[in-house]
Amino acid sequence: MVIGIDAMGGDNAPSEVVEGIVEAQTAIQEGDIITLIGNEPLIREHLDGYTYSEDKINIVHAPEVIAMDDQPTRAFSAKPRSSISVGFRLLKEGKLDTFASAGNTGAMLVGSVYEIGVIKGLIRPTTAALVPKENSGYSVLLDVGTNPDVKPDVMNQFAFLGSLFAEFFLRTQNPKVGLLNIGSEDKKGNILCQSTFPLLKQNDEINFIGNVEGHDIFNGKADVIVCDGYTGNIVLKQLEAFYEVMAKRQADDPFIERLNFENHGATPVIGINKPVLIAHGISKAKAFKNMVVNSAHLARSGLNEIIRQKLAENIGL
Amino acid sequence: MVIGIDAMGGDNAPSEVVEGIVEAQTAIQEGDIITLIGNEPLIREHLDGYTYSEDKINIVHAPEVIAMDDQPTRAFSAKPRSSISVGFRLLKEGKLDTFASAGNTGAMLVGSVYEIGVIKGLIRPTTAALVPKENSGYSVLLDVGTNPDVKPDVMNQFAFLGSLFAEFFLRTQNPKVGLLNIGSEDKKGNILCQSTFPLLKQNDEINFIGNVEGHDIFNGKADVIVCDGYTGNIVLKQLEAFYEVMAKRQADDPFIERLNFENHGATPVIGINKPVLIAHGISKAKAFKNMVVNSAHLARSGLNEIIRQKLAENIGL
Repeated sequence: MVIGIDAMGGDNAPSEVVEGIVEAQTAIQEGDIITLIGNEPLIREHLDGYTYSEDKINIVHAPEVIAMDDQPTRAFSAKPRSSISVGFRLLKEGKLDTFASAGNTGAMLVGSVYEIGVIKGLIRPTTAALVPKENSGYSVLLDVGTNPDVKPDVMNQFAFLGSLFAEFFLRTQNPKVGLLNIGSEDKKGNILCQSTFPLLKQNDEINFIGNVEGHDIFNGKADVIVCDGYTGNIVLKQLEAFYEVMAKRQADDPFIERLNFENHGATPVIGINKPVLIAHGISKAKAFKNMVVNSAHLARSGLNEIIRQKLAENIGL
Repeated sequence: MVIGIDAMGGDNAPSEVVEGIVEAQTAIQEGDIITLIGNEPLIREHLDGYTYSEDKINIVHAPEVIAMDDQPTRAFSAKPRSSISVGFRLLKEGKLDTFASAGNTGAMLVGSVYEIGVIKGLIRPTTAALVPKENSGYSVLLDVGTNPDVKPDVMNQFAFLGSLFAEFFLRTQNPKVGLLNIGSEDKKGNILCQSTFPLLKQNDEINFIGNVEGHDIFNGKADVIVCDGYTGNIVLKQLEAFYEVMAKRQADDPFIERLNFENHGATPVIGINKPVLIAHGISKAKAFKNMVVNSAHLARSGLNEIIRQKLAENIGL
């Protein structure tokens, strides 16, 4: 398996990327290769400070960089030799099995949709995040910002995608799917939730348990929490804010530590033809190490192919 | 000042209400009176266990109760002798200066709108919550659930109302108003935020600082955080979920303790003609004590009259 990582992505590239990738050497399976994509001389300069195996880490030169504030669509085509553009090309050609970056999120979505393509039958791809359950394990929260405005049929597809992600990535059996809402009764909520609820109830592909509320986010009532991307993004960032506050206060608590986004490393783009992961611009070495681990785990889960097969069966979504 | 409290409201009424009200005796100003509204024999039975001053606590008999699951509009008129209906009538007649309950929220809103009335010029009343800033003080978050679907002009009024609430209730000078969004740039967000942003920018009544994100919820970037009621409710309940998780883990941290909703006791209904506060159904004695304190503080702040005066000046909102 070849795990592609954008060496130039994020506020701390390439130094933290390289540090994390070196650490990841011991965490990948025998025969796996990490391909770093970016400015080769610069990457080598950073790699030289570490002990690493040439069998496990190689470099593909990409002299351009899509900056964090570049306009995504324009930059993607205007900078064909950028690390992100090269990464997607290699993924498309099968020279990578998975590609991940902490760089320009918009450009990563452009590449996901236009180079790799949305799985046939889906209206929109989505991004998901892992939310720690109070006692152990994680729930899947989606969408977390890719789709700020959505219609009920898209929400219904999110539920389907999140359920498969929970099943095949997190290995949660028969995951319970909840609709994030502001009341527990069936007809509660905003117009979007009121219209989505009956679709989820009729969806035979998921184990829908009804509405969940803000106070259910950590209690494990649902394994998959479905919402629009505006709401999910705010929930996710509030969770991170809480972590930041508590980390600054040196709270020594395993639950707090599990809120740290660096544990996950990256968020998958779900609903496209190949495994792609997006990470926080502020990622550091620990996050990059886990980005590698989760990239390999996502690719080995076969999630993309499973979604494709399910949708090919004409399940009415 | 006469502070009206629904003795029958909430899951723990009347025992916890009575306990909290007895504790509140020492926290109110000289001459203030707490009027408990509800089943008088039952209230007396609970009061008998405590030492209290008849000058500070009196009772108005209301033999009926609007249950938590009663249909609000129907219950309000079908149970004219319920504690909530009687409370609103007394408030309207000027026999109370303020009225608060932990009972049926819908019925409290029905009373607020139909008995007390929305201030002329406002499209919708709103409910706000206090969110602790990391270091000290509180931000105002609104709407927190009363208006799950709103239009930009309503959001603009929320900003105005929240700003006045921060200024006159929290005594925050020139409060910074932020729009809760999923990016910091002006044009980011969902359609509602994109359409609301220019209205807030043009609103001369507020000190608009632009977008704030989920990770800004505790950092004090904004003193007033404006969002639709669906989002605000989820943010508020997620915050309460953090508190619950950490309290269970016996976290000993002042920031965590400041997340405890019981410190505030109740949430004001902003934009109606008289002071009304709504509390959690699960409120206990501490929350009821603070409900009394904050009812008096809200009434003394003159907020309702200030909003009325401002809107009478034809400020173009």
